[in-house]
Amino acid sequence: MRAPTWKWFIEYTHPTQAHMHGVRRFIYSGKTEYQVVEVIDTEFFGRCLVLDGKIQSAEYDEYIYHETLIQPAMVLHPKPEKVMVVGGGEGAVLREILRHPGVQRVVMVDIDREVVELCKKYLPGWHQGAFDDPRVEVLHMDARRYLEGTGEKFDVIFMDLTEPVDDGPSYLLFTREFYRTVSDRLSADGIITLQAGSFNPRLIECHAAICNTLATAFPVVRSYSSYIPSYDAVWGFALASAGYDPLLLSPAEVDRRIASRGITKLKYYDGETHIGMFAVPKDIRLAKESETRIIEDGCPLITY
Amino acid sequence: MRAPTWKWFIEYTHPTQAHMHGVRRFIYSGKTEYQVVEVIDTEFFGRCLVLDGKIQSAEYDEYIYHETLIQPAMVLHPKPEKVMVVGGGEGAVLREILRHPGVQRVVMVDIDREVVELCKKYLPGWHQGAFDDPRVEVLHMDARRYLEGTGEKFDVIFMDLTEPVDDGPSYLLFTREFYRTVSDRLSADGIITLQAGSFNPRLIECHAAICNTLATAFPVVRSYSSYIPSYDAVWGFALASAGYDPLLLSPAEVDRRIASRGITKLKYYDGETHIGMFAVPKDIRLAKESETRIIEDGCPLITY
Amino acid sequence: MRAPTWKWFIEYTHPTQAHMHGVRRFIYSGKTEYQVVEVIDTEFFGRCLVLDGKIQSAEYDEYIYHETLIQPAMVLHPKPEKVMVVGGGEGAVLREILRHPGVQRVVMVDIDREVVELCKKYLPGWHQGAFDDPRVEVLHMDARRYLEGTGEKFDVIFMDLTEPVDDGPSYLLFTREFYRTVSDRLSADGIITLQAGSFNPRLIECHAAICNTLATAFPVVRSYSSYIPSYDAVWGFALASAGYDPLLLSPAEVDRRIASRGITKLKYYDGETHIGMFAVPKDIRLAKESETRIIEDGCPLITY
Amino acid sequence: MRAPTWKWFIEYTHPTQAHMHGVRRFIYSGKTEYQVVEVIDTEFFGRCLVLDGKIQSAEYDEYIYHETLIQPAMVLHPKPEKVMVVGGGEGAVLREILRHPGVQRVVMVDIDREVVELCKKYLPGWHQGAFDDPRVEVLHMDARRYLEGTGEKFDVIFMDLTEPVDDGPSYLLFTREFYRTVSDRLSADGIITLQAGSFNPRLIECHAAICNTLATAFPVVRSYSSYIPSYDAVWGFALASAGYDPLLLSPAEVDRRIASRGITKLKYYDGETHIGMFAVPKDIRLAKESETRIIEDGCPLITY
Repeated sequence: MRAPTWKWFIEYTHPTQAHMHGVRRFIYSGKTEYQVVEVIDTEFFGRCLVLDGKIQSAEYDEYIYHETLIQPAMVLHPKPEKVMVVGGGEGAVLREILRHPGVQRVVMVDIDREVVELCKKYLPGWHQGAFDDPRVEVLHMDARRYLEGTGEKFDVIFMDLTEPVDDGPSYLLFTREFYRTVSDRLSADGIITLQAGSFNPRLIECHAAICNTLATAFPVVRSYSSYIPSYDAVWGFALASAGYDPLLLSPAEVDRRIASRGITKLKYYDGETHIGMFAVPKDIRLAKESETRIIEDGCPLITY
Repeated sequence: MRAPTWKWFIEYTHPTQAHMHGVRRFIYSGKTEYQVVEVIDTEFFGRCLVLDGKIQSAEYDEYIYHETLIQPAMVLHPKPEKVMVVGGGEGAVLREILRHPGVQRVVMVDIDREVVELCKKYLPGWHQGAFDDPRVEVLHMDARRYLEGTGEKFDVIFMDLTEPVDDGPSYLLFTREFYRTVSDRLSADGIITLQAGSFNPRLIECHAAICNTLATAFPVVRSYSSYIPSYDAVWGFALASAGYDPLLLSPAEVDRRIASRGITKLKYYDGETHIGMFAVPKDIRLAKESETRIIEDGCPLITY
Repeated sequence: MRAPTWKWFIEYTHPTQAHMHGVRRFIYSGKTEYQVVEVIDTEFFGRCLVLDGKIQSAEYDEYIYHETLIQPAMVLHPKPEKVMVVGGGEGAVLREILRHPGVQRVVMVDIDREVVELCKKYLPGWHQGAFDDPRVEVLHMDARRYLEGTGEKFDVIFMDLTEPVDDGPSYLLFTREFYRTVSDRLSADGIITLQAGSFNPRLIECHAAICNTLATAFPVVRSYSSYIPSYDAVWGFALASAGYDPLLLSPAEVDRRIASRGITKLKYYDGETHIGMFAVPKDIRLAKESETRIIEDGCPLITY
Repeated sequence: MRAPTWKWFIEYTHPTQAHMHGVRRFIYSGKTEYQVVEVIDTEFFGRCLVLDGKIQSAEYDEYIYHETLIQPAMVLHPKPEKVMVVGGGEGAVLREILRHPGVQRVVMVDIDREVVELCKKYLPGWHQGAFDDPRVEVLHMDARRYLEGTGEKFDVIFMDLTEPVDDGPSYLLFTREFYRTVSDRLSADGIITLQAGSFNPRLIECHAAICNTLATAFPVVRSYSSYIPSYDAVWGFALASAGYDPLLLSPAEVDRRIASRGITKLKYYDGETHIGMFAVPKDIRLAKESETRIIEDGCPLITY
């Protein structure tokens, strides 16, 4: 008897669009102070972390998501030593950051302690022990409050947040006011990178608004993207800085920096991948240009 | 009352993976000699052509699919005059080809006359009258038999086929033997381009096998891809030739050729898009390298 | 190739309960002044009429629904001559009423002219020409206004309404005030019958409230039910009168009356079926007893 | 935030029919030697036991299923002392049998020890401790082999089996040969009762064939049914005996026997319920008459 498929996880991405994932096993289901958490083993994508009904990352392709989020900024920065992560509960962002031998300190601020504990337990393939690295400090508090209070400066700050849904924990971390705070806490040549919404042309306003908002605080803002199969979509990211520009990095230079730092285990990112990521199709460029919205505390971005 | 969504088109891409599309209206449903045809108006993607249960193209993003299939080869070839299309029932490939003013003749061979008639009727936004262009000849016969019988040579040949499913009409148009025939019917500097399977890393064998098979007949074979939202995937294409190489075309040169030919209405393709399309991520490159299969008449490729 | 099933009609009966019907063909879809109308050919139940997303009747089992609604009252009344129908757009209620040779006049008041026209066209197996019977008069107006205005008296009045949803056309036809009007327009020994909600014990409040409300206007009120496979449920009905009581009708007497009236084509209803219909399981009886709600114009019943 | 519903259990009852149950939590999933077992908490029906993808019983309405299976035969038999159960892993059949104070011994033979253990652990509301009753003996072996080997006689034998699917554990327990064995092991006035397929008229062949097959071994064979909401169907049962006939039991006598045995906690079954259960609608009676199939070991019944 072929294994029957009668358990499904259905992820709605729009009131009239959904993706059905056949599930081998539902591993964990619970509610933290901030969100609903599920760990499920899908037949196609393997183990998945689901927050508030949306797949955050999947065993089968988390390397794409996490290398895309982390490696461009880490490689672009010539000497990243102090790094901050907002969110990133799975620990895979730590894993990717710690590949760079020059890193001396990583502060991860994830408000949801329970999610981090669940990831430690259920997603060992993601963090691969990164939480135990002595260079890592993990804090559970509001990232905005942390940044406002700290005197520390960082070379790179990563925002690995859930999408800014209505009553979710993250919507005040996408605003002009917040990016100004981030800018203050970056070193003079610092870089910020964040996941930044779908690259589906019809849903691009979210990404465009994030880029517009970053541009109020940073002179260089670049869109880039990767295909995340478990999202059934090409997903957008944004990198911003006071000066470093990923478009000026040649593929050969990307490969050279990776090699010179002794990094050997990247599965997705290299020079050619870099070029593809930062090439934005014409329709997306045009759509971005027509979006003028800037996200503010008093008028936050809320996605479906 | 908000419009309710109780009509759904569910496209299975795997026994445990499916996409649900809320449907505004089912426009047409029938069975030709070769395939089951549906024309449906989805809420999100607008009108869609569905063959044997799979979305072929959607009102909302067919420009991405069709510009991706047609424009790289047409721009790469310095003077495309005689062009052939295999399949392409919607007529949008004709539309894209005819943008190039130097084109003198287009032969389209689509075995399924009924599908072409249905597209003429139900998808006017796709063909935009291209079927009536005097440079176009449409034939309804087996493309392989046509190519074996004709003495004509073409500058560019496009394969716009459904995927090679079990008893579908297309599986003998993906083989080594067939590509040899195509090669014979191309002019000395001719180019062939085809849609070539999903770029999902887990499903890449299909794309890899097509590229391997092309390489038995053509010295230059290049993979490229675009994100097609209505496929919920990045989709692969392949371009092959005796010499012209899209990797040697700079973005500026792409933009220059488009401008010099007086083409103004492209929504997706330009120099920057070209660069992104032909940059293949590292994981796909590695997966392609490990696939050695060559498709032959006696052992055709069959996808799910 | 086995006929593929990728078109689905999904009927939600609760936010967490739905039934999926594989669809052979969507025949008609439109919006009248009052409701959204679909005619669909399902694989399992054949042609179905769907109003506002809910199956009203299906080719395969409409005989169960319509004989259940009509025959108990028509047989219980010793001499039904003048009959009124509220709703009943499909025309199958007319068909069932007209089986009784003593009927002299049937007034059908269905507010939605378009639905009636669509049923005439698409559901010929339902009405079987009943709309053309000279004894039938069809009016398109608000039934409540009609009953308030007419001086006519009826022996039996049938209410074949959609469920009282939020902004649907029927919710003011389930109230105490309306039943009082109905009572006035019935002859001294008249009977009213209506479809009256699901017999699922968890959803029984709706049925119970209807019965309570009928009891404010009629001394005899009886619950009964039949299994309607296309509803995936046992469905409730209610019969009320000034005196005639279906519980006092023996199966033999039911069979005798059917035979004496020369009725031969009933597929579902007879003496034994009658007994089963009016036997209410203990859990439903207890649940009904605990529900005290009475439906009023100012506080109408709204179902999911 | 309203509780989101993105986890679904989809039960197919036909290739083009399915029911979607929103799931609060998947409790257990595993594979025994005989079947796939799931314990799930649905939003609507509460906890459910699912074997091979089919809901066996649900917290919310198992009382209907189990009282329907057990009480008619127990009440019909004037003095049931020795009772046998085939299957019945949940333990709720034991609970219902043990309500009758005259019962001295119950032998339950369920081949799947693991399922019984899982039910003990996860379905305490079903068995309510019945497994610990000293009158109960539970055996894990093939029921057919047990009956062939034992010299014991039983007053009532209940068959609470999964449907006879292709490679499931039960298909040889629905045959003529097996019913002959059962007949031998019943006392002279013994009764057999079993769940016996859907009462959906279109799927009635299964039920009809079971009744025909019972009639080869028993002079009295009666169909009856109850609406099981979690099955989305009216479900059929069959009672057979050498002489006792449930159709001869008046509702008053049913109520009298229940009372005289001091049974007070039945939620579903009583005299009026009994009448409704055993009244078979005309369409089902006619369909049964037209089915002549008898199930034999060499030609077993296999349902979808």
